[in-house]
Amino acid sequence: MQQIAVITLGIAELPRSRRFYTEGFGWTPAFETDEVIFYQMNGFVLSTWRTAALASDMMRTDLMRPGAFALAHNVRDRDQVVPLIGRLTAAGGNLLRAPDEPPHGGFRGYVADPDAHAWEIAWNPAWPIDENGHVKFAVS
Amino acid sequence: MQQIAVITLGIAELPRSRRFYTEGFGWTPAFETDEVIFYQMNGFVLSTWRTAALASDMMRTDLMRPGAFALAHNVRDRDQVVPLIGRLTAAGGNLLRAPDEPPHGGFRGYVADPDAHAWEIAWNPAWPIDENGHVKFAVS
Repeated sequence: MQQIAVITLGIAELPRSRRFYTEGFGWTPAFETDEVIFYQMNGFVLSTWRTAALASDMMRTDLMRPGAFALAHNVRDRDQVVPLIGRLTAAGGNLLRAPDEPPHGGFRGYVADPDAHAWEIAWNPAWPIDENGHVKFAVS
Repeated sequence: MQQIAVITLGIAELPRSRRFYTEGFGWTPAFETDEVIFYQMNGFVLSTWRTAALASDMMRTDLMRPGAFALAHNVRDRDQVVPLIGRLTAAGGNLLRAPDEPPHGGFRGYVADPDAHAWEIAWNPAWPIDENGHVKFAVS
């Protein structure tokens, strides 16, 4: 099965990260401790975990930021991109790329979370989003 | 909506990465070009994109590996963990942590893909997986 159950982001401190996700995105934690916060996503779990604990769990000591990856949150309407990027930067995010139109169509910008993890905020009219937030690949 | 539409991993070269995902995990690309491969996942899309193109899209030039994050693929049965880790390492992955039992229960190990991105392969009996591969957070 082509499946990812959890995305875990290594973070320096929970309150700073929590503010970005709860005030910026407006998301609600499913569970939180002093070490980790879990968010229920569209069919999987997003975890923000203290980097030292994640590194220890992975038995890896050389974690670096920013990593060579990006996460994308897709919105339903083009006019949602700019306000969301505004809320994310107001909640501690750093603008990487102001929104513009990529070659394949749509509209998107990039914001780094307070731990330098990259988020693309995108309107992609070619990729349908169902009522549960599930996204389907399609050729534009 | 608490939603992630795309996870994009920066990769050095497609054939090496493709082998890990198609032969190791057994996944089928939804679409591929010389620059990028997309895999349809459980309600979102996994993208493996040449790192230089991802960096350019993000307007960020300082991407490093390994990044401070991990992805988890959860299996339905404990006895699937060891064989899958074996297939992943045979397909170009590097073992980070041999499978053992974490404090919260279950059974898991970690493998890095050929571009040093970490994958946890986990059996977590506390978190239900539905017939579409969607995973729900639950307290164990």
